[in-house]
Amino acid sequence: MWKRILALIAMALLLVLGGCGKLASSSSTSTTSTTSNRKVQTTGNYSSTGYNSIVTEGHYKTSAARGVAADYANNSLDVKGMETGLLQLSEGVFSPDKYSFQEGQYLTSSNVQNWLGRQSKSNSTGLNPASNGSTDPDKRTPEYLGTMLEQDFVTGSGSKTTLGGISIALGMNAVDYYQKEQYGATYQTKISADQQETQGKKIAQEVVTRLRAKEGVGDVPIFVALYSLAEKDSLVSGSFFAKATATGKTLDKWDKVNQQSGVLPTVNNAKAINSNDATAFSNFQTQVQNFFPNLAGVTATVHYTDGSLTQMTVNIQTQFYSQTEIMSFTNYVASVANKLLPSNAPIQIIVASVNTTQAIISRSASDKEFSINILQNY
Amino acid sequence: MWKRILALIAMALLLVLGGCGKLASSSSTSTTSTTSNRKVQTTGNYSSTGYNSIVTEGHYKTSAARGVAADYANNSLDVKGMETGLLQLSEGVFSPDKYSFQEGQYLTSSNVQNWLGRQSKSNSTGLNPASNGSTDPDKRTPEYLGTMLEQDFVTGSGSKTTLGGISIALGMNAVDYYQKEQYGATYQTKISADQQETQGKKIAQEVVTRLRAKEGVGDVPIFVALYSLAEKDSLVSGSFFAKATATGKTLDKWDKVNQQSGVLPTVNNAKAINSNDATAFSNFQTQVQNFFPNLAGVTATVHYTDGSLTQMTVNIQTQFYSQTEIMSFTNYVASVANKLLPSNAPIQIIVASVNTTQAIISRSASDKEFSINILQNY
Repeated sequence: MWKRILALIAMALLLVLGGCGKLASSSSTSTTSTTSNRKVQTTGNYSSTGYNSIVTEGHYKTSAARGVAADYANNSLDVKGMETGLLQLSEGVFSPDKYSFQEGQYLTSSNVQNWLGRQSKSNSTGLNPASNGSTDPDKRTPEYLGTMLEQDFVTGSGSKTTLGGISIALGMNAVDYYQKEQYGATYQTKISADQQETQGKKIAQEVVTRLRAKEGVGDVPIFVALYSLAEKDSLVSGSFFAKATATGKTLDKWDKVNQQSGVLPTVNNAKAINSNDATAFSNFQTQVQNFFPNLAGVTATVHYTDGSLTQMTVNIQTQFYSQTEIMSFTNYVASVANKLLPSNAPIQIIVASVNTTQAIISRSASDKEFSINILQNY
Repeated sequence: MWKRILALIAMALLLVLGGCGKLASSSSTSTTSTTSNRKVQTTGNYSSTGYNSIVTEGHYKTSAARGVAADYANNSLDVKGMETGLLQLSEGVFSPDKYSFQEGQYLTSSNVQNWLGRQSKSNSTGLNPASNGSTDPDKRTPEYLGTMLEQDFVTGSGSKTTLGGISIALGMNAVDYYQKEQYGATYQTKISADQQETQGKKIAQEVVTRLRAKEGVGDVPIFVALYSLAEKDSLVSGSFFAKATATGKTLDKWDKVNQQSGVLPTVNNAKAINSNDATAFSNFQTQVQNFFPNLAGVTATVHYTDGSLTQMTVNIQTQFYSQTEIMSFTNYVASVANKLLPSNAPIQIIVASVNTTQAIISRSASDKEFSINILQNY
């Protein structure tokens, strides 16, 4: 039951990010209210669900650790994967009806930088274990925590906003990349799923304890989700695998998160996560590929939650010789997609030429037909 | 009256190209019909109006002069401007209810290449006058015709398609760029609007005569539109200024086409085409620009037909540090656009980061609210 609700929430949020949504109701337009001399406003939310964001006097409150998470990720797909995924999972704890989104304000850049390091004399707050001196892949102590991310949820739209909850994503290494000497070759220590989970839960509790001690956090619920980072050369992002909420001092009850990501067509004869979706995509690919005398490259990434397709993103690369070719091709792709691609899941098709976006074709989970958006470039 | 109809048609077509349109009715879905052993199909058209395109056995029939027009244009904006504009103007002659679109099949690459040249011993079909020997900007004979484009309109969706009409755009130079010696400096001969019109009409008649002589053209209507090409360094495309249809051998009656293009904010203190729209954009720009600590670049191109805004394309460039920043910014931009940008015109807002499209926010002329489309990149 809980899983189904989660899946629905995840699908609903993907709608926000991927859909061609319209303003659902006038109640979700941006609201402006003036206090003594400070104007707090929300962005409004042009989707059927999802969070409003806080805007203060026309300025966006950026994260206190802006850009740091990205510096620590080995695979850039993980940065977007963690950000988007944490927001989705947070909807189950901090309802968008009640809370607005705000970039993380409590973990500072230096917090994140120090905490992601190893424990040492010079870095007493390091959340990764001290080195045991070995440089052997199987004997050394690996760094378990790869990156981390904070998102805040606030209440009150009127004169003042109040912190209502904090979400934390911990990016756990599946592979720890290291050098034996500076600028030397890169070696790897593999970390088992069991280790990721055990270490992740231990670190999560420490993070909660440290956050509770911070001024302004008080006793708001702190939600933590554990994310398994993708390998460096992976074509898909990693995925979340566990989550828990601390209403008091401790994270008591951990729940499993069942997410999978893959690419289509599959690489090296790997088995597709869902063979029906893979066949549907393959038929779509065949029909699209030979539209022009020059071949179009057609690939997709798919994301599943509890076995259900929650997002399909199709990338089409081809060369166009005129605006009318783009128009005709985009219409054709939409018609083939309507016929062949899986239903009931949000799908986004990005048509690009020499890496420049030319059109977006998308359908949310609840839509019947694809809608198209051809970029004006004149 | 005719002008108003044209404006409506142009606005309707821009909907096709710029809108986030849905399939209007089931009658416009793609149709497939099998003949002896050939499958003719149309792309379908996922917009509220506009042309279907012809697809034969899953392949698109590309233009016989594919890519040639682009090679001859001094300003790449003109290529898209001519293609999009000719399609718009053609709707007034070849109704999308009756005709499907097909890339030009009658002018071959060598036709276009020879016709765009000067008349000479080695090139008897050149449509530009023979050189008078002078290299003085004001004394030489300029090349009037810069580039040309064909679009075909066919009827019959069943067993066989039949040519129903041809549209031709002639791109007339406002400035003729030339070298006195190969690889030498570039000089300019300015061509007056009167000269563009006189020469354009003369060349148009010759093109009609030559097309009539081609096999397969028969006595279908030939529509010709004259386009004034933009200068090399122009930030906006040129525009169409005259049009006529030959149902028989001659283009009898020429009509004026009143189109203007501009950029916002205006450059060098130039006067805006419409000061209300310019003020609205300026307010929008101010509110969007300071959202992040780093400044966002906000510019727009505007197109007017008979004084009415028929397309506004806004380009926003800024740097993002997270997916949640993209989400918040896009929602904010949509809310500000709803409040401030002109109504009753199709508007497209492209949000990009380091020249990579991140989101599209658009509204067709008939929509009340902007819809958003954030690119999935994970």
